[in-house]
Amino acid sequence: MNQEKHVRAAIVGSTGYGGVELIRLLLNHPNVTITSVISASSAGAPIAEGYPHLNEVMCDTLDGVDVEEMRRKADVVFTATPSGVSGQLVPKLLEAGLAVIDLSGDFRIKDGELYSAWYKHSAPPAELLAEAKYGLCEMYQKPYVAGCKFISNPGCYPTATLLGLIPALQAGWIQPNTLIIDAKSGISGAGRGVNLGVHYAEINENFKAYKVNKHQHIPEIEQVLSEVAQNPVTVTFTTHLTPMTRGIMCTMYASLAGTFIEEDFISLYREYYAGRRFVRIRPQGQWPATKEVFGSNFCDIGFAVDQRTNRVTIISVIDNVVKGAAGQAIQNLNHMMGWEETAGLMLTPVYP
Amino acid sequence: MNQEKHVRAAIVGSTGYGGVELIRLLLNHPNVTITSVISASSAGAPIAEGYPHLNEVMCDTLDGVDVEEMRRKADVVFTATPSGVSGQLVPKLLEAGLAVIDLSGDFRIKDGELYSAWYKHSAPPAELLAEAKYGLCEMYQKPYVAGCKFISNPGCYPTATLLGLIPALQAGWIQPNTLIIDAKSGISGAGRGVNLGVHYAEINENFKAYKVNKHQHIPEIEQVLSEVAQNPVTVTFTTHLTPMTRGIMCTMYASLAGTFIEEDFISLYREYYAGRRFVRIRPQGQWPATKEVFGSNFCDIGFAVDQRTNRVTIISVIDNVVKGAAGQAIQNLNHMMGWEETAGLMLTPVYP
Amino acid sequence: MNQEKHVRAAIVGSTGYGGVELIRLLLNHPNVTITSVISASSAGAPIAEGYPHLNEVMCDTLDGVDVEEMRRKADVVFTATPSGVSGQLVPKLLEAGLAVIDLSGDFRIKDGELYSAWYKHSAPPAELLAEAKYGLCEMYQKPYVAGCKFISNPGCYPTATLLGLIPALQAGWIQPNTLIIDAKSGISGAGRGVNLGVHYAEINENFKAYKVNKHQHIPEIEQVLSEVAQNPVTVTFTTHLTPMTRGIMCTMYASLAGTFIEEDFISLYREYYAGRRFVRIRPQGQWPATKEVFGSNFCDIGFAVDQRTNRVTIISVIDNVVKGAAGQAIQNLNHMMGWEETAGLMLTPVYP
Amino acid sequence: MNQEKHVRAAIVGSTGYGGVELIRLLLNHPNVTITSVISASSAGAPIAEGYPHLNEVMCDTLDGVDVEEMRRKADVVFTATPSGVSGQLVPKLLEAGLAVIDLSGDFRIKDGELYSAWYKHSAPPAELLAEAKYGLCEMYQKPYVAGCKFISNPGCYPTATLLGLIPALQAGWIQPNTLIIDAKSGISGAGRGVNLGVHYAEINENFKAYKVNKHQHIPEIEQVLSEVAQNPVTVTFTTHLTPMTRGIMCTMYASLAGTFIEEDFISLYREYYAGRRFVRIRPQGQWPATKEVFGSNFCDIGFAVDQRTNRVTIISVIDNVVKGAAGQAIQNLNHMMGWEETAGLMLTPVYP
Repeated sequence: MNQEKHVRAAIVGSTGYGGVELIRLLLNHPNVTITSVISASSAGAPIAEGYPHLNEVMCDTLDGVDVEEMRRKADVVFTATPSGVSGQLVPKLLEAGLAVIDLSGDFRIKDGELYSAWYKHSAPPAELLAEAKYGLCEMYQKPYVAGCKFISNPGCYPTATLLGLIPALQAGWIQPNTLIIDAKSGISGAGRGVNLGVHYAEINENFKAYKVNKHQHIPEIEQVLSEVAQNPVTVTFTTHLTPMTRGIMCTMYASLAGTFIEEDFISLYREYYAGRRFVRIRPQGQWPATKEVFGSNFCDIGFAVDQRTNRVTIISVIDNVVKGAAGQAIQNLNHMMGWEETAGLMLTPVYP
Repeated sequence: MNQEKHVRAAIVGSTGYGGVELIRLLLNHPNVTITSVISASSAGAPIAEGYPHLNEVMCDTLDGVDVEEMRRKADVVFTATPSGVSGQLVPKLLEAGLAVIDLSGDFRIKDGELYSAWYKHSAPPAELLAEAKYGLCEMYQKPYVAGCKFISNPGCYPTATLLGLIPALQAGWIQPNTLIIDAKSGISGAGRGVNLGVHYAEINENFKAYKVNKHQHIPEIEQVLSEVAQNPVTVTFTTHLTPMTRGIMCTMYASLAGTFIEEDFISLYREYYAGRRFVRIRPQGQWPATKEVFGSNFCDIGFAVDQRTNRVTIISVIDNVVKGAAGQAIQNLNHMMGWEETAGLMLTPVYP
Repeated sequence: MNQEKHVRAAIVGSTGYGGVELIRLLLNHPNVTITSVISASSAGAPIAEGYPHLNEVMCDTLDGVDVEEMRRKADVVFTATPSGVSGQLVPKLLEAGLAVIDLSGDFRIKDGELYSAWYKHSAPPAELLAEAKYGLCEMYQKPYVAGCKFISNPGCYPTATLLGLIPALQAGWIQPNTLIIDAKSGISGAGRGVNLGVHYAEINENFKAYKVNKHQHIPEIEQVLSEVAQNPVTVTFTTHLTPMTRGIMCTMYASLAGTFIEEDFISLYREYYAGRRFVRIRPQGQWPATKEVFGSNFCDIGFAVDQRTNRVTIISVIDNVVKGAAGQAIQNLNHMMGWEETAGLMLTPVYP
Repeated sequence: MNQEKHVRAAIVGSTGYGGVELIRLLLNHPNVTITSVISASSAGAPIAEGYPHLNEVMCDTLDGVDVEEMRRKADVVFTATPSGVSGQLVPKLLEAGLAVIDLSGDFRIKDGELYSAWYKHSAPPAELLAEAKYGLCEMYQKPYVAGCKFISNPGCYPTATLLGLIPALQAGWIQPNTLIIDAKSGISGAGRGVNLGVHYAEINENFKAYKVNKHQHIPEIEQVLSEVAQNPVTVTFTTHLTPMTRGIMCTMYASLAGTFIEEDFISLYREYYAGRRFVRIRPQGQWPATKEVFGSNFCDIGFAVDQRTNRVTIISVIDNVVKGAAGQAIQNLNHMMGWEETAGLMLTPVYP
C-alpha cells in the first residue's frame, strides 16, 4: 500500500472554488501529495491568506504558472482554470509529459465548431479534443481511463443530468425527443469572481433563471446523450440559481416509451450502477435533496412515474463542487492510477 | 370616495401566515377596517403576542370563531383557514348573510369526487361548490365577481401557473398535452405549523422536491386549463422547496403549435393583460426573479423560445403570500365591491 | 390637505440600495412627487433596467448629476451618495437654494479633524458642518428641524445604538465609561458595490466580524453620547455581518449607576419616547428580533437587567435600509415640512 | 497500529444532530467501529430512514436503550441525550463497566444545587458529579483524562468562550469582573426537535436574542473561569440566533489589567496552545469567521485591543456540532485511549 503514496499533484487555479476543494479532498487522499498550488493572479502569497480556513492546514505559498516547474514538482496536474485558459495551458503540460485532469470545459466538446458556437471563442486543436477522455466515471467501466494521461472532467450540470438519464435512455425506456431538464444550482457554481450576479443581497431570498436555452453545458449533455441513444438528441435545458452555496438538482422529464412503474426504474438503475459506490438510487417514494449529498461525492437519484401523463420524472442531486468538479476529478485520478475508485473520497455528507 | 370606507372585515385564521398578511395589507387599504381578528386556537390573546411585529400596530385581541359575532362586527369575512375547516365554516357564514372570500382549497374544485380524491376528505355540498366563484382576477373581466358574495381564492401554485399559461393556451399556440410545470416555492407556503419539514436546519442550504405528481393544486390547475382549452388537459406538475421564505417560480414547458418567437408571446400576453396592473410581461431576453415581486401583488412573466426543440419556456413568479394568497383575496374584494382593482395593493416590491 | 402635495423630490444615488428604497417609500408618500432619479454612473438608462422590480412602477430614465436641472425640477434633494461625494455635491445644492437631506456620513461629524481621521479623506468646510442639523428624529422635539434646509441623516448603526442608549444615559442610570456595543448587520448595509466581501458564497452560512474598533460610525456615536452625557464618552463598538439582507441588532452593555429593574427601564423609555410612533419599547421579558421590523421604519428596544453583575443589556433593532437610511430621511423631510412625522411611513413590517 | 482498531462505540441519541455527527466523524476514525446506534424514539427503524444522507453509508437499524446490550456490543458509549436523560442513564452504563462520554449538560456542574437552579430539575448524585472529568481538551495536558472512564463533554458555548478566555485570564491580563460575552449561534444548536422557534420562516432573514442572562451554559462557564482565576467570576452572557445552520461566534470583552497590544495576546495564546492542533490563533488584524471552521474541529481565535478604552475584544469561533459537540467528544476519546489527539479529526473546513 505504502509504495502507492507516490503521486505528486499540482493544482492550477488553486484560488478558485474548484481548486480549493481539490486541496480539501487531496489532503485526505492516502496516495497523493500536493506538491504545488498554483495561481496566475496570486503567485507568491500564501494560499491561506485568501482562504483563512486553510491556516495551519495548507501552509504553501502559491506558485506561478510555470510548466517546467510543474514538470519537476508533479506527476499529475489538475487544471481548475477558466475555459479558454485551459485550452492554452494543457497542450504544454501534456507535451512536458505530465498527466492532466482538466476541470474546464475546453476539452469536453469533440466538435470544435460546436465548441466555438457555445463557448464564444476558438477551440483547442482537434487532435487534443480527440485525445481527451471524457471522465464521467460511472458511464464507463474502469479500463476506459486506466493508464490514459489526459482526462476532461465533466461539467457540474452534465454530471447530474447524465447520471440521471443514461440508464433509461440506453434501455430505450424514454423518448429522447421529449427530454426536458430543469436544473437548479447553488451559487458556488458561478465561481469566486465578483459581479452583481453573486452579490449576497441580490441572491438571498431570491430564485432566478439564467441563460435559458443558452448554457454552454447543453452541447456537452447532448453529445453524450446522442452517443448513448446512437441518434442525435436535442434537449430543453433551463438553469436556475437557488439561494444556497452548494448543490445541484436536476428535475428531468421524459415521455415513456412503454409501460413502466417506479420500481422498474429503480431496478434498472441499481443494476446499471451496481458496484459504483457514488451513485445511490433512492427507494420508491423517496426523492433526494441536495443537502443529503452536501460535501460528498455522491449522486443520488429518485423517480416518479405519472400514469396520468405517461411521463417519468427523474430527480438527481450532486454537490456541484465535489461530484460536479473536484471530487469527480479525483475519482478520475483514482481510475487513471488503477486505485480504488473511492480512495480519499468516502466522505459522509455533512448534515445538517 | 369617503363614504366607501365602510367595509368592515373579519379574518378567520389570523394567526396563520395568510391571515397575518391580510392584516398587513388591509391596514393599508383605504376602504376597509379590520373589525375582528379571529383564531380558533389563540382566542383571548392579543394578536401581537404571537406576532411581535404587530406591537402598537394591531392591538386587537383575537376573537373566537363565532358566526353571530362576525355577523355583528363584519360585512366580509376572509377565511384563511385550513382545507376542511373552511368547508365547514363557510356555509354558516354565507347563511348569516356575510360575504366570504375563502383562501382554503375547499371550494376551488367543482367536482366533489375529484376534490375528495386529492384532498383526502369529503367535499362541501355541491351547490356551494357551484356557487363559489373562482377568483383568479386577471382571468376574467371585472363584472365576473362584482356583486357576488362568495369567492374562492385561487391557490398559490395555480395563480403563478395559470397566469403564465392561459393566454398561450387560449390562443392555441401551445400543445396542451405537452405541458410540464416545474414549480419552486419558499417555505412560507407550508404555513406556520411546525414539523420536521420546516425546521430551519433541514431547509437551509437545501433544495428538495416534494409531493411529486401528487400536489392537491394539480386538479385546480387542470380544471381551469381544461376550461380554457375547451378540452381535458392533464399536466405534469412538480413542486420543490427552495431555501427562502417567500416566492414562487413556475418554469413551464410546452411544445409550440406553430412557429412563434419570443416577441410574439410578449405581444400576445401584453394584449391579454392590457390594463391589468398586477401582471407585468418582461421584455425579450429578461426573465423574472422571485425577489422582484417580494412583498407585492405582482405576477411577472417572461419567455424563452427554443427553435432547436420548438418549445417555449414560460417563467412566472409571484409572492406566494401576496398574489398567491392575501393580496389576491383583497384584489377579489376590490372587484366584489366595484372598487379600483389596485386599491390598497399598489405595493412596490421590497428590494433588496 | 391637497395643497400639501407639492413637494418635488430628486434622489441622487438612485441606483444604490438607499436610493432605491427612497423610491419605494416616496412612491407611497401622499405629499411628495419624485421628479428626478439621478445616477452619475447610469445616467440615460431607465432605472428599471438595473432594478427590474421597478418595471411599470417607476418608469423614469436616470438623470445625470446636474445641479441646475435639479434646481428646476425639485424642491428637495436626497443625496444617497457615498462619503466624499456628498461633501462635494451638497454645497452646490445648498447654494442653488435646494433643501438637502444627506444620507452620507459627510456632515455628521462636527469636528473636521475627527472626520478626517476616521473617514480617511478631508472634511467639508467647517461652516457647512456647523449648518447641517443631525437628524436623529426621536432625539429631538420637532421644532429642531422644522424649517431648516439641510439635514444630515444619521448612520444605520448610530440610529440603532443611540435610540437604545440616550434615555438611560440622559437619566444617568448607566455608567458612560462602561458602554460596550456589539452590533450585527445584514449585508445590504455594505451597499450594491461588488467585492469578495459581499459574494454570496462567502457570506451565506457565515458570521463574521469586521472593522473591529475601526468603524467610521464610532465618532458619530460618541459625539452624540458625549453631548447627552455632557462629558466625553468613549465606547467599545464591534461590527459583525450576519447572513441576511436587511436588519441591524445592537446588543449593548452598561454597568448600572444605581439599582434598577427591567420595568424601570421600560417606563423610562416609554416616557422618553411618548408620542413617537417609530420607537416601540418591548414589554418585560421580550426582546426584539430584526425580522419584526423588516421593511418598516420602527426601532424596537428591549431590556435585560442582570442583578448578578449589576449590568443592563439593551437590545435595539432596526431595518437598516428604512429607519437606518431611507425611512429616517423621509421622516426628516416630514419634520422639515411640518407634516405628520409618520406621513408615508406607516408600513407594517413584512412578516414572515 | 492495527491492534488499536479495537474500540467498539455505541451512540445513544443517534437521531439527534449531535448523534448523527458522531456517526459522520467516527466512520472516518481509524481506531473505532460503531457497533450500535441507539434511539429511544425510533428503535427498530434503519437510521437512514430519518437521515437519507446516510443511505448506503450507515445501514444499521436503530437499537433501543438497553444497557445489557450496550455492555455486550460496545466498549465506550457516547450519550448524546438530552439533559435529564443522561443523568438517569449514565450511572447504569458506568455500573455496567462501560466507558462513557456524555454530551449532555448533566455532569458538567459540580455543584448539584447550582445545576438544579439553572437546569430546572434535580442533579445526578454528587459522587458521579465528582467523578465526571470535564473534557475541555485544550485546557489540560493529556494525562488528565488518559485512562479515565467517564468524561463530561463541554457545552458548545462554553467551548468557544473558555478557549478564548482561559489564557488571558490565567495570565492575569484581563479583569475578571469586566467580562462580557456576546455569543451567536446557528440553529443546529437547538437540536432537531420541532417548535416555532426553529421554523425556517421565523429564523430566515432574522437575528434574535434569547435566554438573555438565563442560558444554562452560564454556570458552566463561570465554574471554569473561577477555577482558572482562583476567585469567583461572574459573567454577562448573551445568546443570539443567527440565520445559519452551524457555527458559533463568541465576541468577548474585558478591561485590560495592564498595557498590552494585540501581538502580546497572539504570543501568549500561541504559547498556551503550543502543540494543540485544533486551536488556531489568527495573525494580527485578522478575525475568524464561522465558515472558516465549518465542518471541522478547529477553534479559531483573534484579538483586537482598543487603546482608547483599554479593553480587549477576543473573538472565537467553532463549528458547534463538531468542536462544540461530536468532534470534541471524539477528541476526548482519543485522549482517554492514549491515541493521537487528532485521530479521525483532521478535517479541513468545508469552504465555501
